[in-house]
Amino acid sequence: MGIAHFIKTVEDLYEAVVTSVPGVKFGIAFCEASGPRLVRYEGNDDELVKAAVENARKIGAGHVFVILIRDAWPINVVNAIKHVQEVLTILCATANPAQAIVAETEQGRALLWIVDGYTPLGVEGDKEKRERIELLRKIGYKKG
Amino acid sequence: MGIAHFIKTVEDLYEAVVTSVPGVKFGIAFCEASGPRLVRYEGNDDELVKAAVENARKIGAGHVFVILIRDAWPINVVNAIKHVQEVLTILCATANPAQAIVAETEQGRALLWIVDGYTPLGVEGDKEKRERIELLRKIGYKKG
Amino acid sequence: MGIAHFIKTVEDLYEAVVTSVPGVKFGIAFCEASGPRLVRYEGNDDELVKAAVENARKIGAGHVFVILIRDAWPINVVNAIKHVQEVLTILCATANPAQAIVAETEQGRALLWIVDGYTPLGVEGDKEKRERIELLRKIGYKKG
Amino acid sequence: MGIAHFIKTVEDLYEAVVTSVPGVKFGIAFCEASGPRLVRYEGNDDELVKAAVENARKIGAGHVFVILIRDAWPINVVNAIKHVQEVLTILCATANPAQAIVAETEQGRALLWIVDGYTPLGVEGDKEKRERIELLRKIGYKKG
Amino acid sequence: MGIAHFIKTVEDLYEAVVTSVPGVKFGIAFCEASGPRLVRYEGNDDELVKAAVENARKIGAGHVFVILIRDAWPINVVNAIKHVQEVLTILCATANPAQAIVAETEQGRALLWIVDGYTPLGVEGDKEKRERIELLRKIGYKKG
Amino acid sequence: MGIAHFIKTVEDLYEAVVTSVPGVKFGIAFCEASGPRLVRYEGNDDELVKAAVENARKIGAGHVFVILIRDAWPINVVNAIKHVQEVLTILCATANPAQAIVAETEQGRALLWIVDGYTPLGVEGDKEKRERIELLRKIGYKKG
Repeated sequence: MGIAHFIKTVEDLYEAVVTSVPGVKFGIAFCEASGPRLVRYEGNDDELVKAAVENARKIGAGHVFVILIRDAWPINVVNAIKHVQEVLTILCATANPAQAIVAETEQGRALLWIVDGYTPLGVEGDKEKRERIELLRKIGYKKG
Repeated sequence: MGIAHFIKTVEDLYEAVVTSVPGVKFGIAFCEASGPRLVRYEGNDDELVKAAVENARKIGAGHVFVILIRDAWPINVVNAIKHVQEVLTILCATANPAQAIVAETEQGRALLWIVDGYTPLGVEGDKEKRERIELLRKIGYKKG
Repeated sequence: MGIAHFIKTVEDLYEAVVTSVPGVKFGIAFCEASGPRLVRYEGNDDELVKAAVENARKIGAGHVFVILIRDAWPINVVNAIKHVQEVLTILCATANPAQAIVAETEQGRALLWIVDGYTPLGVEGDKEKRERIELLRKIGYKKG
Repeated sequence: MGIAHFIKTVEDLYEAVVTSVPGVKFGIAFCEASGPRLVRYEGNDDELVKAAVENARKIGAGHVFVILIRDAWPINVVNAIKHVQEVLTILCATANPAQAIVAETEQGRALLWIVDGYTPLGVEGDKEKRERIELLRKIGYKKG
Repeated sequence: MGIAHFIKTVEDLYEAVVTSVPGVKFGIAFCEASGPRLVRYEGNDDELVKAAVENARKIGAGHVFVILIRDAWPINVVNAIKHVQEVLTILCATANPAQAIVAETEQGRALLWIVDGYTPLGVEGDKEKRERIELLRKIGYKKG
Repeated sequence: MGIAHFIKTVEDLYEAVVTSVPGVKFGIAFCEASGPRLVRYEGNDDELVKAAVENARKIGAGHVFVILIRDAWPINVVNAIKHVQEVLTILCATANPAQAIVAETEQGRALLWIVDGYTPLGVEGDKEKRERIELLRKIGYKKG
């Protein structure tokens, strides 16, 4: 979830995601904030598009976008999305349950931020640190 | 509107905007958060500078900057602003009416986010999708 | 302080900071938001690591990271941190007293933003403008 | 002049240039290096497109692109072009006479580099340094 | 093929490629230019690593790197590679036959550039332009 | 060593380097390619400025820049230099002996590339790979 501006966002986000990972499935929705004020959408998977539209509608804050992906990870697309020329900020990229905190005035709404997953239960010790480092080597993301 | 740090921001934002579009008119204001705590400003159009200073003063949250431009579009300057080395985040780039949501503590203020325009009225159908795609071709931003 | 995703963040932030400035001292902490939900940390200075962990714990919002540095300035590391592939947003980079504004739901927490220093006391005049410009030349950050 | 890959380059370069400066006039040509092996082109000014095609044809090296612009400066578009996902390198951005140095093998050609303008005649002294610094302030690109 | 500096390049390129596309297969080789002066390598596919090492050895120019990928396209990884902090330039990203043009002095070698595929046979006409635009829509890289 | 355009380059490179590393010492020289055609320079260390000017003069190719640094490593400044809006390409960032390969026509000169250090003597084996990985951990650039 993030903030952009201008309806060109949906096509540009489409291109950024589709060219990042071969075979990625995704849906994009964007809240137009003036004129016809429609939720604009693109994607290549009906179910994900529908869910993205539904999320964007529920948040209902001007210029917010929602992207849902399958067969890819946020790490594969986040930097490409950051460089899209209409994108201002990414607020959340997660596989966790997420709650949007939305402020409402008489004019409209603002997405303040996302509760992304849960609060920490403690601090990692030496054993958990080793496990974290080993996990990243096991999945091949880090060497050494 | 965005968040930066350090008074060098105003000169660097000035350079980023002025070198992005020939002939752009603009005003920049930045809320210094320590020491003399002044609204710092630059620009090349008195009216826009004055309005940017006024907006920054009203928000009054440390390290917030406001940029107002004329004879250019946000799309022409947003990526240049993102790369300025003091800029942390851009919260809003819009031609819509905007309301700042500001939190205040006994210490100071934080700009939480912007209500940018209005909430969506519905979801685009096939006709509106075609119109959106055609509009971007008509103004020359997309081909094909 | 900023928002990222995925535990690889701590190693990647470590590398981004350590390779930006020779001899920089720092501590990094990151709130894992699912699974073991531990505050993950790295760094090369025990005191700064401890303080970063303590700050992250107090905020307690999923996927928030905190970086504390010594012998370097935010301007030396901010652009490197922006480009880390898990980093979504930087909310604050400051030497001022800072207060985190945190929202709490039954699920968890979201870091809404930071009160960074204090509200402005006024607007710079010609004399303060000259002093600002001269200061940046005196410390060597700008020429001319 | 630069190096890219894949025919999508021409549309992406078109979008990068047209969205950088309102009203910019330009022509783009790109040497496809396999399959039909055609010079591909886009733009919004016939004369500049024609000249870009002619330059690309003369160089004739696989995956080279040429962009000619009017009513804008290289500084307005270079960073946008660097970030286009097919662009590998920009070799030259100039208003000077330029000569391409091309290597030819039995397979094809490589653009080695460009002679961009002329060799220096000397080193700036204090007076020329002051003039350089003043010029940038006079045209408004730098402050202070 | 590109130019970097420092042996950390191979690990950083490894991470940039492996995190860009899930399941990508690749080999990386880099010509160390001082000290032990070894071809350094990483990757997750023996055949591609071997071929990358062989190519780097043949070119034999200091600080040149070679990356070979399978199950992904250059467009998926080029921007990630550009941002690696040791990478200076990418000279070529292609599926075509490529010939390296190498200069040799008494000290060592420099990779001047690559002959990437073949010289153009002509200029696209209206029909070929339409086919190019349609092709990009058919493979889903562009909308509209 | 790299390629840029426009005399603003020297001030912008100055700012990029000086704000990357506290206390860095450096010299920058740039070959102006038209008008007065002078080697333009900046820096904060006379000896390094003088050496940069001398190197730029010897190469004598339009729009080439040379940066020499002390008390910092290329890795600390390369990404900042890549993002400077006049910089097109970096050809070489090295502590090795380097030879410039320069082409000369009746008009002027082009810097084709640099022989950076020496050609490789062989391929790393398991032992050298381990030593490389350990070295990066020992100097603190990598974890794990």
